[in-house]
Amino acid sequence: MEVSIEAALAELRAGSDVFDPECPARTLLDHITSRWGVLILVALSSGTMRWGELRRWARGISEKMLAQTLRTLEADGLVLREQHPVVPPHVDYSLTERGRELAALLLPLMRWVSVNAAPQPAAAR
Amino acid sequence: MEVSIEAALAELRAGSDVFDPECPARTLLDHITSRWGVLILVALSSGTMRWGELRRWARGISEKMLAQTLRTLEADGLVLREQHPVVPPHVDYSLTERGRELAALLLPLMRWVSVNAAPQPAAAR
Repeated sequence: MEVSIEAALAELRAGSDVFDPECPARTLLDHITSRWGVLILVALSSGTMRWGELRRWARGISEKMLAQTLRTLEADGLVLREQHPVVPPHVDYSLTERGRELAALLLPLMRWVSVNAAPQPAAAR
Repeated sequence: MEVSIEAALAELRAGSDVFDPECPARTLLDHITSRWGVLILVALSSGTMRWGELRRWARGISEKMLAQTLRTLEADGLVLREQHPVVPPHVDYSLTERGRELAALLLPLMRWVSVNAAPQPAAAR
């Protein structure tokens, strides 16, 4: 266990360095680990959604934050925005291939969080 | 792939709901996906560290943010703070068992970010 983590860290530092504030990896990490970024990515892993559906999933998000989060994830090539030429306007949001790869890594993390939400300081040591 | 993601989401929503702003899971998610939380957890996955070492790893972090991040992670039962009764003071930070579990899920995510840092909007679709 310790060895594989050491190896993973060495590999991590050898590549694009997420610990370096000047590195694009750090910017991407900031986006996907933003308060809402992770929730939106996980929500979209269940399939294509429209604006209203996303707002219902990410309860508590403001219109402004949802718009901003979606724009950022789209610019990162993680979310695809498809506007259909109909009246009234109909816009679909879905994950790109890259976004699906990332969501597959976020889901086990979310599951862990979901199970371990209650603080257990005594048992944890 | 789609099916297993659906199952994972269903399981996620059935348990402690990370999408609910009132739920403790959401608070924990906020902590571990904070700008610095994830970097500190991954840094500590390589072993016990002292304050100065952590500051060198998480380049760009302020003294105040490092102190705050460590306090939050300690309160969540993820980081163990050990103060040794010596002069000058010597404090060690390490991951708890719970923290190691979480770091094991964060490492593949960090590796993905490291590899996929450069935006590839065209190739991603």
